[in-house]
Amino acid sequence: MTRLQLVEQIRKKRSYLCVGLDTDITKVPPHLLKEQDPVFAFNKAVIDATHDLCVSYKINTAFYEALGLKGWEAMGKTVRYIGDEHFKIADAKRGDIGNTSTQYAKAFFETLPFDSITVAPYMGKDSVEPFLQYPGKWAIVLGLTSNAGANDFELQSSGKQLLYEKVLQTVSAWGTPANLMFVVGATQADAFINIRKLTPDHFYLVPGVGAQGGSLKDISEKAMNKDCGILVNASRAIIYASNKEDFAKAARKEAQAYQVEMTEYLK
Amino acid sequence: MTRLQLVEQIRKKRSYLCVGLDTDITKVPPHLLKEQDPVFAFNKAVIDATHDLCVSYKINTAFYEALGLKGWEAMGKTVRYIGDEHFKIADAKRGDIGNTSTQYAKAFFETLPFDSITVAPYMGKDSVEPFLQYPGKWAIVLGLTSNAGANDFELQSSGKQLLYEKVLQTVSAWGTPANLMFVVGATQADAFINIRKLTPDHFYLVPGVGAQGGSLKDISEKAMNKDCGILVNASRAIIYASNKEDFAKAARKEAQAYQVEMTEYLK
Repeated sequence: MTRLQLVEQIRKKRSYLCVGLDTDITKVPPHLLKEQDPVFAFNKAVIDATHDLCVSYKINTAFYEALGLKGWEAMGKTVRYIGDEHFKIADAKRGDIGNTSTQYAKAFFETLPFDSITVAPYMGKDSVEPFLQYPGKWAIVLGLTSNAGANDFELQSSGKQLLYEKVLQTVSAWGTPANLMFVVGATQADAFINIRKLTPDHFYLVPGVGAQGGSLKDISEKAMNKDCGILVNASRAIIYASNKEDFAKAARKEAQAYQVEMTEYLK
Repeated sequence: MTRLQLVEQIRKKRSYLCVGLDTDITKVPPHLLKEQDPVFAFNKAVIDATHDLCVSYKINTAFYEALGLKGWEAMGKTVRYIGDEHFKIADAKRGDIGNTSTQYAKAFFETLPFDSITVAPYMGKDSVEPFLQYPGKWAIVLGLTSNAGANDFELQSSGKQLLYEKVLQTVSAWGTPANLMFVVGATQADAFINIRKLTPDHFYLVPGVGAQGGSLKDISEKAMNKDCGILVNASRAIIYASNKEDFAKAARKEAQAYQVEMTEYLK
């Protein structure tokens, strides 16, 4: 999906919501466990109930890998079911030396039809570049994350900057705002005052709203740019809104609350 | 595998060789392509030909993920075929917020029987800790890698240290030399003078010998400690020594050359 197509979807749906499919088999409503593929059955119901309210789905690969072969199969079925009107994110945090990152790009951009993949920056340029070679595909590089561990390295000084600022500045030169996004957690809204000086045009994937405590209002006021410029992800708050038979209906209700609030901020 | 068991294997085999199974389907000898699972057939032959010469196998997950479901299946068959006498490394460069890293730990330590997994440090403590909760299992955290991109962040200053030094010092406090190793590339041998001051007792996984240009002699002289303290990985130099029907024999010859040289350095 190109940047133009993404911005068009945001305008059309008046939403910059990304629904995170961190589907944990131990949290799937019990009645689904008799299905042949409970994870896919769960995802399909959530997608059917939310697709008009969000512009993106994010698949957290860890939850699928934990199930082995069956999980990898459910991931493939899910990303194919989503289709072409949503921006499909493999939240995989990959990154390795060039010839290995090339294989990861193949895994998520050719073998599986994702639009984007989250990438760890630690190993530098040749670990990110293979993800930037596909037209309409994106690398989403970790900047400042929403977890406590962000203090250990990301928020430590690196020369006159903090490490995450150095990462944003350095990595942004390796691609363009049309093939490169960054991750900044919703709990880090104040950081956007500085971040928007470094990268005025880039999109940001912002997880951490809901279960992790970030505020949608706060992040929207501080992080948006003229093209919206953010995708706000909620996972647990939406997909586990109910663990009974009404889970999809409950997920829709939560997603709708986000979408209604987002419509306000987009005005 | 515990630290004691690993050191015992090294002494018994007079080897600290790790064979890297970065098995690329496009480089597998053509006669294997008619097999039902060419990647596993290749790996099985390489393992049969090298198991008495090495103490460890490293599976680079990217090459398997690139093949989708079939690749994930070949990875599972390979790690199970290796058995319990070798230290099995998932070279997966994972790492995410705590509840997600917990799923990755489950994927590689429960669903698959790996002894260890490579982990990216960028997201900090809660991204590493879930891998340290399994007796006999290890996190192998990226320190200073062998690629050109190491200059972008790892070798940049962080306070009075370089970033990778800060990573080694900080992360080493999160575990022990019995559940935590680090990655330092073989092209970075000189860095070990300083590294051994920071972490005298830890094991290091050292890739980059062979195709990437690192010297086994150099790294062995500068990085070993009283328990050996290094696992030196060679991938392409061994597994692609020939792409004809004699590939396993050629792999054995290469592995044996490393083992013979290592026996000297272990004296």
